[in-house]
Amino acid sequence: MSLSNTDVPNGVNHEACRPIREVLGIVGDKWSLLITYQLSRQKLRFNELRRALPGISQRMLTYSLRELERAGLVLRTVTPSVPPRVDYELTPLGATLLVPVQGLTDWAVAHQAEMEAARARYDEA
Amino acid sequence: MSLSNTDVPNGVNHEACRPIREVLGIVGDKWSLLITYQLSRQKLRFNELRRALPGISQRMLTYSLRELERAGLVLRTVTPSVPPRVDYELTPLGATLLVPVQGLTDWAVAHQAEMEAARARYDEA
Repeated sequence: MSLSNTDVPNGVNHEACRPIREVLGIVGDKWSLLITYQLSRQKLRFNELRRALPGISQRMLTYSLRELERAGLVLRTVTPSVPPRVDYELTPLGATLLVPVQGLTDWAVAHQAEMEAARARYDEA
Repeated sequence: MSLSNTDVPNGVNHEACRPIREVLGIVGDKWSLLITYQLSRQKLRFNELRRALPGISQRMLTYSLRELERAGLVLRTVTPSVPPRVDYELTPLGATLLVPVQGLTDWAVAHQAEMEAARARYDEA
């Protein structure tokens, strides 16, 4: 599916706002984006993901992974070893999310210094 | 500034992860993205924004707008009328965020049906 959507211009389109709100509820949060970013490299186990995301709680990681799995973006595989091994990886649908996520992370890196300077000015004033 | 950043490939780059985590903490949440999207059309007052974002609390909208203002993405203008009028608009920096935000919203709209179907299957299983 194409990433562009001519039905959704930058301008007024209230009809388009409802699905955007709903979908950003899932993909538009820091942890979902960061989990997607981490899984872009390779499949990871729960504890590997947790170590890669300092600051995330076990509860929040469990919740985020379940919502990503539920939406068909992440595949959870249980290998019946002792102890059982659980891996997480992106589905083909999840992999398509990497394009806009990369756009957002590129923007973040490019403008980080500008935002830090703005924040320092704001906190001084 | 260019949106592309050749220092940050899709693959392993742990050095790049810290700023991404920090910055996505601000721009990578549903409400910040939706506020940016709403302000892409025009400047809006607080209550206009609140009406445009069903489900946001007054407290969360206040917090999100302050963080966006603090990071230099949103400009808050107070007109000393009676009662005072407060408008919010994107700064030039905030306007550059629209490009990746549009990428994410295009993706969301394009893949919404697929995710809804996946969720229905998950909830049945």
